Amino acid sequence: MKSYRKELWFNVPSRRGFINITSQVQECLLESGIREGLALVNAMHITASVFINDDEPGLHADYERWLEELAPHDPVDRYLHNRTGEDNGDAHLKRQVMGREVVVAVTDGKLDFGPWERIFYGEFDGRRRKRVLVKIVGE
Amino acid sequence: MKSYRKELWFNVPSRRGFINITSQVQECLLESGIREGLALVNAMHITASVFINDDEPGLHADYERWLEELAPHDPVDRYLHNRTGEDNGDAHLKRQVMGREVVVAVTDGKLDFGPWERIFYGEFDGRRRKRVLVKIVGE
Amino acid sequence: MKSYRKELWFNVPSRRGFINITSQVQECLLESGIREGLALVNAMHITASVFINDDEPGLHADYERWLEELAPHDPVDRYLHNRTGEDNGDAHLKRQVMGREVVVAVTDGKLDFGPWERIFYGEFDGRRRKRVLVKIVGE
Repeated sequence: MKSYRKELWFNVPSRRGFINITSQVQECLLESGIREGLALVNAMHITASVFINDDEPGLHADYERWLEELAPHDPVDRYLHNRTGEDNGDAHLKRQVMGREVVVAVTDGKLDFGPWERIFYGEFDGRRRKRVLVKIVGE
Repeated sequence: MKSYRKELWFNVPSRRGFINITSQVQECLLESGIREGLALVNAMHITASVFINDDEPGLHADYERWLEELAPHDPVDRYLHNRTGEDNGDAHLKRQVMGREVVVAVTDGKLDFGPWERIFYGEFDGRRRKRVLVKIVGE
Repeated sequence: MKSYRKELWFNVPSRRGFINITSQVQECLLESGIREGLALVNAMHITASVFINDDEPGLHADYERWLEELAPHDPVDRYLHNRTGEDNGDAHLKRQVMGREVVVAVTDGKLDFGPWERIFYGEFDGRRRKRVLVKIVGE
């Protein structure tokens, strides 16, 4: 069994944003030399997500509005978590809806995707450097 | 390390529906000959889910109503995504709540499940042929 | 390839609660002798979750209130599932928001975590013994 590990770093300039990281994960896979196995891609921070969906700006705006309805940022004192001095209580909730991680099949040295599957980093508390872990195991 | 791959195809005749795919995944596992490892089962489409829960029709009706409350299909112009000509903006949101994939332990050649765990395909934009990927790695 | 399996048992005395199980999963990893691979940690019950987030009591109270808003327990007859004689319809919905499982990278014999990542068992229908499965594969 081979195993490969890499951290991808991001610094989203606004509080929230979505970044298509598919090509970076594909580069990791190429670098790993693994042809059959599983690729885990996860946020290493608890106010961010990694998820798979469509690379369509309208959809991303829909996610932004919808998540803000489900778990509004303001008023910040609606979250007990923010009594710790943070203002990111909402981000911990939004991340649960969108998920921490994806596991992707690796087949013939490629991410084994349907036609529209793309991997995104979802930032809910940005304006600082944060990491995604790519771990690939297989042969 | 052994690795196995199969696509399962579905054509749900209505817009939304849930299909118990546990026995099909079990057949894949048998076919794979793998006795210890991990099975990844994921929707290959971004308006569908694979999830694990109870095979109980009342619960499925509860999911249907709840998801429609969280992310209503109508009016379709509430989603910017639908400006692309699609009417499935809601489906991309519902799929995030229910999830893209499950990873199931394989032990002694069996899906290592609790008493009520069953695998479902969740369709949120049906009336066409769509796929689930089963990838099993192990020994 | 090595593979390791263990069940962790919990009995949450109230209907709902969150338990930090990180150290128990770390003990499993140590016991497994696996240094590189993937660790799957999943609820074996369909009214419970395993998720990764912050070990902060204010946040847990926020989750509790938020999940109760998204999928209230009462009135129990709002869920068709409860016509089966159960009163846990809400728990099946809450579990979908928080997720069934996490997959964690194993690197150098350790859970490969960001600074604040901790693993939690999320109980939504407690007052009875329930299980979490830890399955680790690798070398």
